[in-house]
Amino acid sequence: MQLGMVGLGRMGGNIVRRLLRAGHRAVVYDHNPAAVAALVEAGATGAASLEDFVSRLDLPRAVWVMLPAGAPTEDTVNGLAALMQAGDVVIDGGNSFYKDDIRRAAHLREKGLHYVDVGTSGGVWGLERGYCMMIGGAKEAVDRLDPIFATLAPGLGDVPRTPGREGRDPRAEQGYIHAGPSGAGHFVKMIHNGIEYGLMQAYAEGFDILRHANSPDLPEAQRFELDLGDIAEVWRRGSVVSSWLLDLTAAALAGDEHLDAFTGHVADSGEGRWTLNAAIEEAVPAHVLAAALFARYRSRETASFADKLLSAMRKGFGGHQEPK
Amino acid sequence: MQLGMVGLGRMGGNIVRRLLRAGHRAVVYDHNPAAVAALVEAGATGAASLEDFVSRLDLPRAVWVMLPAGAPTEDTVNGLAALMQAGDVVIDGGNSFYKDDIRRAAHLREKGLHYVDVGTSGGVWGLERGYCMMIGGAKEAVDRLDPIFATLAPGLGDVPRTPGREGRDPRAEQGYIHAGPSGAGHFVKMIHNGIEYGLMQAYAEGFDILRHANSPDLPEAQRFELDLGDIAEVWRRGSVVSSWLLDLTAAALAGDEHLDAFTGHVADSGEGRWTLNAAIEEAVPAHVLAAALFARYRSRETASFADKLLSAMRKGFGGHQEPK
Amino acid sequence: MQLGMVGLGRMGGNIVRRLLRAGHRAVVYDHNPAAVAALVEAGATGAASLEDFVSRLDLPRAVWVMLPAGAPTEDTVNGLAALMQAGDVVIDGGNSFYKDDIRRAAHLREKGLHYVDVGTSGGVWGLERGYCMMIGGAKEAVDRLDPIFATLAPGLGDVPRTPGREGRDPRAEQGYIHAGPSGAGHFVKMIHNGIEYGLMQAYAEGFDILRHANSPDLPEAQRFELDLGDIAEVWRRGSVVSSWLLDLTAAALAGDEHLDAFTGHVADSGEGRWTLNAAIEEAVPAHVLAAALFARYRSRETASFADKLLSAMRKGFGGHQEPK
Amino acid sequence: MQLGMVGLGRMGGNIVRRLLRAGHRAVVYDHNPAAVAALVEAGATGAASLEDFVSRLDLPRAVWVMLPAGAPTEDTVNGLAALMQAGDVVIDGGNSFYKDDIRRAAHLREKGLHYVDVGTSGGVWGLERGYCMMIGGAKEAVDRLDPIFATLAPGLGDVPRTPGREGRDPRAEQGYIHAGPSGAGHFVKMIHNGIEYGLMQAYAEGFDILRHANSPDLPEAQRFELDLGDIAEVWRRGSVVSSWLLDLTAAALAGDEHLDAFTGHVADSGEGRWTLNAAIEEAVPAHVLAAALFARYRSRETASFADKLLSAMRKGFGGHQEPK
Repeated sequence: MQLGMVGLGRMGGNIVRRLLRAGHRAVVYDHNPAAVAALVEAGATGAASLEDFVSRLDLPRAVWVMLPAGAPTEDTVNGLAALMQAGDVVIDGGNSFYKDDIRRAAHLREKGLHYVDVGTSGGVWGLERGYCMMIGGAKEAVDRLDPIFATLAPGLGDVPRTPGREGRDPRAEQGYIHAGPSGAGHFVKMIHNGIEYGLMQAYAEGFDILRHANSPDLPEAQRFELDLGDIAEVWRRGSVVSSWLLDLTAAALAGDEHLDAFTGHVADSGEGRWTLNAAIEEAVPAHVLAAALFARYRSRETASFADKLLSAMRKGFGGHQEPK
Repeated sequence: MQLGMVGLGRMGGNIVRRLLRAGHRAVVYDHNPAAVAALVEAGATGAASLEDFVSRLDLPRAVWVMLPAGAPTEDTVNGLAALMQAGDVVIDGGNSFYKDDIRRAAHLREKGLHYVDVGTSGGVWGLERGYCMMIGGAKEAVDRLDPIFATLAPGLGDVPRTPGREGRDPRAEQGYIHAGPSGAGHFVKMIHNGIEYGLMQAYAEGFDILRHANSPDLPEAQRFELDLGDIAEVWRRGSVVSSWLLDLTAAALAGDEHLDAFTGHVADSGEGRWTLNAAIEEAVPAHVLAAALFARYRSRETASFADKLLSAMRKGFGGHQEPK
Repeated sequence: MQLGMVGLGRMGGNIVRRLLRAGHRAVVYDHNPAAVAALVEAGATGAASLEDFVSRLDLPRAVWVMLPAGAPTEDTVNGLAALMQAGDVVIDGGNSFYKDDIRRAAHLREKGLHYVDVGTSGGVWGLERGYCMMIGGAKEAVDRLDPIFATLAPGLGDVPRTPGREGRDPRAEQGYIHAGPSGAGHFVKMIHNGIEYGLMQAYAEGFDILRHANSPDLPEAQRFELDLGDIAEVWRRGSVVSSWLLDLTAAALAGDEHLDAFTGHVADSGEGRWTLNAAIEEAVPAHVLAAALFARYRSRETASFADKLLSAMRKGFGGHQEPK
Repeated sequence: MQLGMVGLGRMGGNIVRRLLRAGHRAVVYDHNPAAVAALVEAGATGAASLEDFVSRLDLPRAVWVMLPAGAPTEDTVNGLAALMQAGDVVIDGGNSFYKDDIRRAAHLREKGLHYVDVGTSGGVWGLERGYCMMIGGAKEAVDRLDPIFATLAPGLGDVPRTPGREGRDPRAEQGYIHAGPSGAGHFVKMIHNGIEYGLMQAYAEGFDILRHANSPDLPEAQRFELDLGDIAEVWRRGSVVSSWLLDLTAAALAGDEHLDAFTGHVADSGEGRWTLNAAIEEAVPAHVLAAALFARYRSRETASFADKLLSAMRKGFGGHQEPK
């Protein structure tokens, strides 16, 4: 079927490519004409403006917006809404906050437009592996877009089937789900990222302990010089902690066991924060997810005011000097 | 080659079976004669006592002890040491504390005996999938046992090879490593379990937030009824959080989405605790691994004294009554 | 000077009493006529309606609203704003969210009205001890209200003066500060409560460890039967952990060492949650404040879904049964 | 009464001074003759060697050892034990690990010697404020030393009496307790320090959030420039978070609001670690105490391996570059 794509960065561009390869048609727009040209070369139809873009789409239109969350997505959704008509669908495939989805969907609904939010995981690997998608929106709209989702999804692949799923929604094991009404897709994707932070931090702490197993603070007979690359590798086969993140860890350590290429300043994105806000709002304990987020915050500080205050108190009650 | 096995529980028994299937020979002993008989039927040579067992082994002997950590292992290792002779190897394949390994190895070394500690992951799945093994001990002894380890390990299987490992120790990608001197095997296995706790808790918290997405405390327009089984399933394909633990989660939720079969009292074993002790000793921050352990402690309490004290303080300063 | 008070619950009523005792005048209103009558008996002027209340106040008016945060405060502030005139001041002495203060202040400013937010700590003890107050708003309005704040504050009391404060704002050591523009008062009070949660949890965990010092899981020679009431008492004199919360702990344990009167279900209020939201928004690590909040969440659950999922995974990979 | 003191550092020296001022007699020894001379000048009897020291003490002897935990204390206790006789008492007033106390007490008991462990809080302030003491040992020995403890303790002072303590052990409100058998004193002191870490971290996080309330990441209308010194000061009067640690915080911030004198490298001592080990051993959740310890560990690292691994994984799955 035909899909319009606004935003031809790495994600948007690759989604279009994967669709074209499977025989779908695409109309594309980006404010960078070179990005448009590159996809025209790959078989898409280019547009010169948002108006031009909308005019080239078959009715009812399906437009995928793949832009940074916040103002870029908001402005484009509003711009599209002004140009589109009842029955059309706007898909937000970016990393929007789910409460923004809920608000926008209500706004578009007034005009008879559908708003579908798609959380995608898989990032740079999606063109080849396919995109794991969590979708929110009205059933009618989501069902109509199914050919698109089925193409983008990874499919069964060589992942063994889960016993006991007979009779359940077959889309999940193809790699996409209709999670619920508008907002549900990004909500589920948000939690995915929150979990991701926790998993990453669990590995990071464990490998940090392994690395310090030769610490001079330990009794000499209890020190070990461990090969972290081999440890990551061995755990990939038959252990309880095997995972894709461990695969990536093994690859990183195989190339640079000390990870000297990194400073250790770790970014965080909205989803990790929003996951924690959701936990707070639902009154669900989330010790690990919170700790994982805070570790990233701390990674970007050099001299923490909190720590200075600890030193100041220690000096106050005990005359303690700071360690060198 | 020939291996002696003491302790024919699920783990010990299956290890012997996997060896026998591959053409190795086994002498087995357990204080439960029925366990011995079952393996004799599978092709092993049975022994009636520890003395009998030792006498049936070729020189230099290789004896694998597969018993609960603590006194059972300690007593058996000591009993074997008294019966064995220089050049023999005792393998502790259980879940011993690595400092006990270091102590025992030094003790056996005085008698010319080798002590090899093997941490294994894979549990009940090992017979078919193979055992992921982390091995500590002298190079001479570990190398001599290589045919055993190579048979027990999972092998390359269908796990993709890690780029950049060319020229590195090939055992790691077969699923076993020689981690270092005695104690190193159980040390690495211990950290494996510590990470396992952290990973599990990350998933548990994330799914808990998903489950409470329909909480009546939330604004009605922001509630979602999510299908947790489908979410676990979809994340298995192409997402960043795919892992074996997620596979197990998907299977559990496919069969019983509310997990009503469980009370939520979660056991912990030595390794999770020891991992934290190691982090403390090395001065490595381990927020996530600690939180994961404490969550298990808390799961087994019904009315925590700590919480009662919070209530008492709240009553003291604000006259607050407890919520119902 | 004259102050109007809307909301004559425990807090509002006692504030009026403390003002009357010091010679100030008060006009009071509550939708419960009995509450009004009780304060008229104490010397206040009663009002029968919000209109009546506003009409009885000298110009420029000063009205303190002491109502639950959220709709009750919002509606009353809006109602007052409609009846008051340029130069008047509305004081929100409740526990409003600081972003609501900022919004309301901007709204009232359009009409020439001042909005002053006052966070108060001291609760039920304030009538006698005085109220510790953190104040946000325009300098002009806060200065005009100074006689009120000076009377309500605890004053120097017998708390030793802090060395090095010579030449600094003298109000702080009287027990009140002008923290900044509208919202700043409640912001500072919010963080006060966040810290309070952390302090309480630190004591709670410590006393919990003391209480379990006789755990049958410990080696018998390493168990202690400790008198927690005496421990809390002794720490009140000369120790580093002395505090008012410890005083309350000592009193609670003196009366009921096992705290059997409590179930251990611990409530949390907005401020603890908002503190965490603020930390997330500012990218400040707040491990302890988060853990303290989550401990309260957990205290109110009986069988956590997160814990059940841990049990399900353990069964999946190891065949483990739950502990009894 | 007469007390012998070995170890005349700041703590040991001040304890002797406080005793001398109250009319007690002291025999003192230190391997630094200048330290001995200074106390001789203050009225103590000096000794030239451990043998000389022991010979100058009245029977039954009472010897207080005030040395660093570990080897210095261990060696001195053993040296004394060899020189002393049945009925004598050795007091360890340092920061020994309670399991060492239990072991030493058993050892000394074989020779008829008493071993009393005294955990003291109050540090540099003890000479004037008195020492808060937690004491472990046999009743007979602790009772015999009561005149010493009563003098060293802070006494009732101006701390209000706790309601409900009528009829309970009066020593607690004088500032010392007999906590239990040998080891109990240091156990209770250890938990005191664990709590201290948690309290300090709660303040540190709260003030860190206050300090970042003007973060450029926040919407401009929601930023505050707060005076942290005034906030600490105001909370000292009538607020729920008032404490001695807050007094010290107020003093530190009054002198240097930005705490520029500190690097923020925060030491930790044995007690904080041992508290966590005890929690682990007792299976008591201690999220806050653990987080407080780990924050100190993290404060002393510049580029954490754990954080580098997070960056490496992010690069692996998303091609993400580190933030600057």
